[in-house]
Amino acid sequence: MTARPHRLDALRRAMAAAGLDAVALVPGANFQYVTGGRFGTNERPIVLILPLEGEARLVLPVLEGNSWNALDFPARVFPWQDADGYDAAFRAAADGLALRRLGVEGQGMRVFVQIALARHLPGVELVDAQKAISAIRLRKDATEIAALRRAIVLSETALEQTLAAVRIGMSEREIQGLLIGHLFAGGADALSFSPIVAAGGKAAEPHAHAGDEKVKRGDALLFDFGGSVDGFSADITRTVFVGEADAESREFYETVLAANRLGHATARAGVTAHAVDDAVLSLLEASRFKDHVIHKTGHGLGLDIHEDPYIMRGNHQVLEPGMVFTIEPGLYHAGRIGVRIEDDVVVTETGVDSLTSFPRDLRIVG
Amino acid sequence: MTARPHRLDALRRAMAAAGLDAVALVPGANFQYVTGGRFGTNERPIVLILPLEGEARLVLPVLEGNSWNALDFPARVFPWQDADGYDAAFRAAADGLALRRLGVEGQGMRVFVQIALARHLPGVELVDAQKAISAIRLRKDATEIAALRRAIVLSETALEQTLAAVRIGMSEREIQGLLIGHLFAGGADALSFSPIVAAGGKAAEPHAHAGDEKVKRGDALLFDFGGSVDGFSADITRTVFVGEADAESREFYETVLAANRLGHATARAGVTAHAVDDAVLSLLEASRFKDHVIHKTGHGLGLDIHEDPYIMRGNHQVLEPGMVFTIEPGLYHAGRIGVRIEDDVVVTETGVDSLTSFPRDLRIVG
Repeated sequence: MTARPHRLDALRRAMAAAGLDAVALVPGANFQYVTGGRFGTNERPIVLILPLEGEARLVLPVLEGNSWNALDFPARVFPWQDADGYDAAFRAAADGLALRRLGVEGQGMRVFVQIALARHLPGVELVDAQKAISAIRLRKDATEIAALRRAIVLSETALEQTLAAVRIGMSEREIQGLLIGHLFAGGADALSFSPIVAAGGKAAEPHAHAGDEKVKRGDALLFDFGGSVDGFSADITRTVFVGEADAESREFYETVLAANRLGHATARAGVTAHAVDDAVLSLLEASRFKDHVIHKTGHGLGLDIHEDPYIMRGNHQVLEPGMVFTIEPGLYHAGRIGVRIEDDVVVTETGVDSLTSFPRDLRIVG
Repeated sequence: MTARPHRLDALRRAMAAAGLDAVALVPGANFQYVTGGRFGTNERPIVLILPLEGEARLVLPVLEGNSWNALDFPARVFPWQDADGYDAAFRAAADGLALRRLGVEGQGMRVFVQIALARHLPGVELVDAQKAISAIRLRKDATEIAALRRAIVLSETALEQTLAAVRIGMSEREIQGLLIGHLFAGGADALSFSPIVAAGGKAAEPHAHAGDEKVKRGDALLFDFGGSVDGFSADITRTVFVGEADAESREFYETVLAANRLGHATARAGVTAHAVDDAVLSLLEASRFKDHVIHKTGHGLGLDIHEDPYIMRGNHQVLEPGMVFTIEPGLYHAGRIGVRIEDDVVVTETGVDSLTSFPRDLRIVG
């Protein structure tokens, strides 16, 4: 991670624009972006209070001290030990802070942390500033795009290796094991998320868990997965067919593929997220599969797997060069079939560059 | 997952005892325990409102409908579509609920979900009931213990396979890749958490991330990791030495090992969590490494990786048969060495059964 002072400046400008005189960051994408630190989420709260002016204050479990000190980020640390609990550290960190509006990450901060903050900042308005804070990460720079490309290339390679080995009669769990093995052998240092490997009727559950179901001839087989490198994650979906695909399955697939292509063709700088989703969904809704549309076109992708811009009707955010998001239309017929085709793209002045290059044409495996 | 009606009854008794007339569960361990459903955490809120009496109500994104319907759990569903947002579903779900005190999971619920709940339940007191709700999962039954054992056995096998391949000059990242490959090849369906593979000075960061650092002769090499099966996760730490261990390192190690053994010997039904941690920490604090103690002895382990009972001074919870937790004392000398030895144990009437059986004696690898 580089250029962190620049990032802190960007955050302070965002705070001023949102009328916040401080933000409280918890471990996650924004925390990593600003400090370089990657910390987990458990029963031990970590909170970085960044006032608009003046010194940053950090509530930190003692056991994370060595990891924090390895970073190059100026903050006054309020450490706490397990046996003592964190309340006194929050009290000390809050002492002397004259705040009116404190922004927090609504999608990251958990209620017990908010309670601890609110207890020691009486009269301070806690505001969900998820959007304002995360906005500093919207436009990815060349380093970030390069990190995403690395994660995507190794993920696509792992998928190709996996598809080459799929056979009728293998279980979802076996296939998932192959995929994950290839991801780590290929250089991933984490999974983007717990992969989805779902066959036949289970592919109609967009977030299914791999089970002992065996893949059968004619099944759709859906992979939604990705490997991470240094916190940047691929998020790719491909759906293939096992052995054969009947005419109905082919039409189902080609409809989703047309929607995916239309997403690529519609997105560019100056267009709204709404317009992209509206184009994609309108195509699906005009098909004979209109009853099987159950989600939006996509989401932003960066240090968070789901972040702004959400490619969704009603989101009138204008796309800008450097924004990265997924284009992942899907159709789901309960108990029968699910198809989703997901690419990761970066916005340019004239359109989008697809960071994913794995072929999208209908493919029979096994 | 079986016996869910029984689990719902247990939850309702816990609610009554805590003076709650409803709880609102979000995806995670308690949600899975009660409903059987495993859902992820992202920008789309899922909330199950369980009143003390009467029908359960579920705010559910439409795209999760097929997964929800595959469960056998009675609830009135309030679905919402991406483009419409979730606010109307929360409003409809709250309509007609006459509540005074609503319990939420403080360590699971995020602030944006709490805000949505509070908006449509004006005058209702939202209480952090993490402890009361999770208490229904404290005593593990035979099925749960068996699931944990499966996860632990495959994790220990993966560690043995990895240690056999470690050589001086390999990077932390390479070693981590081997470990993860063995976990999935051995039948894990997920990682318990992003593994920690840390060598030399980095082992002094309890939650370090594997990097390109190469292991050197004399390094401590710490593994904190686990594979999951069906939502139950191993959590194991072993520290080995590469090539050789000098006298200072050996003494450091043997001190931690003595603390680990004392934890095993102290824990049993009727003893408090405080007493176990106090015994373990007192041993470390009486050693010449007392300045390198930075965390408690352990945490409960089940569908959550960190849960009650926390084995911590000040926690006067009495241990009961069937409780499962970690015993994981550690010592950390910044920039030089870190050692942690972590076992997973289940409480019996007369002591603890160690679910982990990987040898703990000082081991030289490479």
